Amino acid sequence: MLIQAMPASMQAAEAGIEFAADGRVSVGPGFRRLEAAWMDGVAAMARAGARVIVDAIFLGGAVSQQRWQKALAGLDVLWVAVRCDSAVAAGRELARGDRVHGMAVSQAEVVHQGVVYDLEVDTTHTESLACARIIAAHVG
Amino acid sequence: MLIQAMPASMQAAEAGIEFAADGRVSVGPGFRRLEAAWMDGVAAMARAGARVIVDAIFLGGAVSQQRWQKALAGLDVLWVAVRCDSAVAAGRELARGDRVHGMAVSQAEVVHQGVVYDLEVDTTHTESLACARIIAAHVG
Amino acid sequence: MLIQAMPASMQAAEAGIEFAADGRVSVGPGFRRLEAAWMDGVAAMARAGARVIVDAIFLGGAVSQQRWQKALAGLDVLWVAVRCDSAVAAGRELARGDRVHGMAVSQAEVVHQGVVYDLEVDTTHTESLACARIIAAHVG
Amino acid sequence: MLIQAMPASMQAAEAGIEFAADGRVSVGPGFRRLEAAWMDGVAAMARAGARVIVDAIFLGGAVSQQRWQKALAGLDVLWVAVRCDSAVAAGRELARGDRVHGMAVSQAEVVHQGVVYDLEVDTTHTESLACARIIAAHVG
Repeated sequence: MLIQAMPASMQAAEAGIEFAADGRVSVGPGFRRLEAAWMDGVAAMARAGARVIVDAIFLGGAVSQQRWQKALAGLDVLWVAVRCDSAVAAGRELARGDRVHGMAVSQAEVVHQGVVYDLEVDTTHTESLACARIIAAHVG
Repeated sequence: MLIQAMPASMQAAEAGIEFAADGRVSVGPGFRRLEAAWMDGVAAMARAGARVIVDAIFLGGAVSQQRWQKALAGLDVLWVAVRCDSAVAAGRELARGDRVHGMAVSQAEVVHQGVVYDLEVDTTHTESLACARIIAAHVG
Repeated sequence: MLIQAMPASMQAAEAGIEFAADGRVSVGPGFRRLEAAWMDGVAAMARAGARVIVDAIFLGGAVSQQRWQKALAGLDVLWVAVRCDSAVAAGRELARGDRVHGMAVSQAEVVHQGVVYDLEVDTTHTESLACARIIAAHVG
Repeated sequence: MLIQAMPASMQAAEAGIEFAADGRVSVGPGFRRLEAAWMDGVAAMARAGARVIVDAIFLGGAVSQQRWQKALAGLDVLWVAVRCDSAVAAGRELARGDRVHGMAVSQAEVVHQGVVYDLEVDTTHTESLACARIIAAHVG
């Protein structure tokens, strides 16, 4: 939803976000600036009392998590890994029909590298509703 | 999008938001609290340097605007009225097929009562793209 | 898609289709007439040389299949059961967010009663893409 | 919806349908064969008693209409032109955000060349609901 909310120019420029034909995603300084402003805003919503679920893909692994840790400093956060076997993820990507083929395999491992979680769910063999219930049980 | 992001319980409870069969919309204290946190977050995004477009319906007219004015204090804001003749709005509501019939007529006048704008566009006879260009010309 | 293509009046009238709050679906004579015309049209497309995939829910079990068998007389048909454990189907129904709760459980068994298949797939533990590949392997 | 129902291969092959970057659309023999089978099926639905609305773009003008006239022979048809000024159509195309830019201008005139209508509506300045009511008044 962040990407959809960004100006169209951000998807066409080197400064923005680029989806390569092989599924690799790269982002530039313009994207980073908007992303940082968005993180500050999400943190402000939580500080104002809203309980917020953020669904983020840590393209940079541990470095991505550090950005969020800095933005959310002082807030009570439950870090949840949502894993999926890369072959199953690739099949779901194809069945969706609206994704650049290759993103799932390319991201399945890298987004978890060096990331520290409080809880892990795996959608390979567990229904999404069942995963949601596991997470909900950890949110007081 | 705020309403979609709220918990499902918010659409079923008296504290939340209610869409009456005649198109009237009423909101309770639970909705107000989440809305206030969201406004704070949007303001934080703008203070962090993002240029943000907010599409809001001022169900309370001037009172709704005052809530936003307070949240956005110190920020550079262009207030734009997007008007539409209520009969035309009702026709578009029907053609969309996904709205409670009556909302358009019920809201066409009330959302502008006492609200102060920098700019007004009217989609009754002007294409949305042309309206967007008028607004864009006022955003340096 | 048949239901979406029907006149809006068909979803409001006793002659049409009704989705009860408990997930039961009942259809009247007006629905049956349009459905029969649609079946004739689908059969005509196949007779004209198009290879057609029909995704139908046999609310009447064997009686529903007989309607299709009559419409498709003389055509080469592969009848495929797409099964799903009712508890898992109910979870997916809830996760979709756009279905009357109860339909999945209500239909999980009844739509297969007395129906004769050439092939069966089960999406309870098998990805939809893998199921599609099993079916594709049976279509020359 | 015909294009969405076609196999994905049809959008990648020379025999199928091609959307050029300038908005031109060209179709090959594979597309024509499926389109002809589809027309036969639509006609069969109407002959079986269903009242059908077909929304078609006559890329070939009069030649396209002749294909439909042949398929619908003997049926009672109301041919309706839905026109729109090409500049307004281009603006709507851009505002939709999901179309190849240039299609609207490229098609605005050509799809009506040599086509014979019973009724004409123009959405340039008339709301779609009002156009629908004009058409409905001509359908007994």
